[in-house]
Amino acid sequence: MKNINPSYQSRHQHRLTAQDYVQGILVGDRYLLSQAITISESHAPDKIEMAAQIMQLLESENVSDSMRIAISGAPGVGKSTLIESLGLHIIDQDLTVAVLAVDPSSSVSRGSILGDKTRMSQLSAHESAYIRPSAAGSTLGGVHHATRQSIRLCEVAGFDIVLIETVGVGQSETIASDLSDLFLLLLLPGAGDEIQGIKRGIVELADIVVVNKVDQNNKKQVMDAIQSYRNALQLFTHPADGWRVPILRASGLSGVGIDDLWSSISSYRSHIIKTGYYKTQRTQQEVSWIDTSVDHALHRWLAQHPVLSQEIAQAKNDVSSGKCSAHAAIAHITNLISQL
Amino acid sequence: MKNINPSYQSRHQHRLTAQDYVQGILVGDRYLLSQAITISESHAPDKIEMAAQIMQLLESENVSDSMRIAISGAPGVGKSTLIESLGLHIIDQDLTVAVLAVDPSSSVSRGSILGDKTRMSQLSAHESAYIRPSAAGSTLGGVHHATRQSIRLCEVAGFDIVLIETVGVGQSETIASDLSDLFLLLLLPGAGDEIQGIKRGIVELADIVVVNKVDQNNKKQVMDAIQSYRNALQLFTHPADGWRVPILRASGLSGVGIDDLWSSISSYRSHIIKTGYYKTQRTQQEVSWIDTSVDHALHRWLAQHPVLSQEIAQAKNDVSSGKCSAHAAIAHITNLISQL
Repeated sequence: MKNINPSYQSRHQHRLTAQDYVQGILVGDRYLLSQAITISESHAPDKIEMAAQIMQLLESENVSDSMRIAISGAPGVGKSTLIESLGLHIIDQDLTVAVLAVDPSSSVSRGSILGDKTRMSQLSAHESAYIRPSAAGSTLGGVHHATRQSIRLCEVAGFDIVLIETVGVGQSETIASDLSDLFLLLLLPGAGDEIQGIKRGIVELADIVVVNKVDQNNKKQVMDAIQSYRNALQLFTHPADGWRVPILRASGLSGVGIDDLWSSISSYRSHIIKTGYYKTQRTQQEVSWIDTSVDHALHRWLAQHPVLSQEIAQAKNDVSSGKCSAHAAIAHITNLISQL
Repeated sequence: MKNINPSYQSRHQHRLTAQDYVQGILVGDRYLLSQAITISESHAPDKIEMAAQIMQLLESENVSDSMRIAISGAPGVGKSTLIESLGLHIIDQDLTVAVLAVDPSSSVSRGSILGDKTRMSQLSAHESAYIRPSAAGSTLGGVHHATRQSIRLCEVAGFDIVLIETVGVGQSETIASDLSDLFLLLLLPGAGDEIQGIKRGIVELADIVVVNKVDQNNKKQVMDAIQSYRNALQLFTHPADGWRVPILRASGLSGVGIDDLWSSISSYRSHIIKTGYYKTQRTQQEVSWIDTSVDHALHRWLAQHPVLSQEIAQAKNDVSSGKCSAHAAIAHITNLISQL
């Protein structure tokens, strides 16, 4: 982060143009960065237009080899504490770090993320770090879209590493995985029951696994957990040729293992850049982003459609309550859409 | 299957009404069942209308506690041979069985499924069985929709058990899982490398795991595989309360273990009916089917849109080739959609 220039804040009173936001973001103005992220999360037509303009003006800004790291794990696994430790370690390497959160269920998010920000007190106070409360949205496509824009905004604002925390409800992990270069899964010592908070399909997304909270008096449990996760993970071939998912131990609280975690992250980064997987994965994500965006735009259009939106909601209620068969409901809706 | 009545075939020359198809299906006419499935797979507007009429007429037909079993596994794991053995075993219990296939990539499917049908020679010749080549379609939503209708058609035609074979390309496993009551995963002896054909996220969908091809001289490998899969699977909690995913051994070729597999299937069926998960899962699937159908209908509508369909294809090409940034492409498409 060079040239932090808070003078832009004084322009708050005036109506800012896309150009104003862009200039502010490029010189590292946190306030305008936050405002731009808020705009990119909005569903209001004028905000959507403004977000598009901002993204377009930032179009030509090159960010080379940035690193997007998704961090996921069941509630209680210690995500915030680990993110604080890892974030401070990243800053020690003379790098800057932004923390975003993915949370498709807006009602849940507000509380938990504000809590997170409070818990990451050291990191949030640091001038090389930026912590942003969750992109809340009513649709998965909306969250996906908003978070992607937020990542881009943070990157052009000069942040070297973007950490994407998933709140672990609904499909947030899948979205985070589709937005990141590295998916870091946090697990608790004591294999088996403790993993039950993790949704099906998530373990296999992991590029690095960390057994967290090893600071407590639980050496045996930790060893058992590592062995058990190793058995589980050896079954899966990683899509980046030749990468074996490491199972590390760490304590966000005491800082144990954070340096090893950072080396692993750096190794993974080198590995995927060398093998070309970094670029392949990014391109895949971008092409799939077009599909997500088309879906998102269509759903937004549908949600504003006075008849269809109501009919679909009614159909779901009727099917849930057994009032109407799925076949009949679908025939009805499909018929309406075909008459568009 | 009661009252198999092939006389309906003679009506082939005439233009059949939805009522004709329904009457034929209800008395067990295989030819009309196949025709109705073909109609439900079609993208032609008059066929879509006919399929909707058929489904509507069948609306009131109750099928109680039918069982939909998805069977998945990497190429070479022996799916067809196991399905033939299991199918013949099911028939021995005085039940009838239909075999459908899910394959979103139409170009691949034709060959492999025709091959399957030939390989399932005993089963396909049996009057209590019905084997249907794959529902091919250009979109995932299309395949999903068509297969759901095919399942319903087979059930009202009187088939007790519907086996849904996934061809194992693309997202067929996820679709099959969303269409079935039980997801059966086939694995090979010799853990580790052999699993690499299995896509990430699939192992965790399993309700029953079968290590297949145990007829060969591979006792040690089989034991190792079972232990290894057990270690992996114990990490995951099954959504049906109290169900522990069994890891069975079988040989589709010699028939070893097929009776155990059938007992496991029956136990699972009793378990999910008793715990209510059978009904909960079905209702969830039906509500999510509304979403899939809305998506499918919107995409069909989009594909027929002369401008948008071309622009989206162009955008993907430009992003893949690096000619254009994802942001610019998406802004362009989103803008077009917002002007609908």
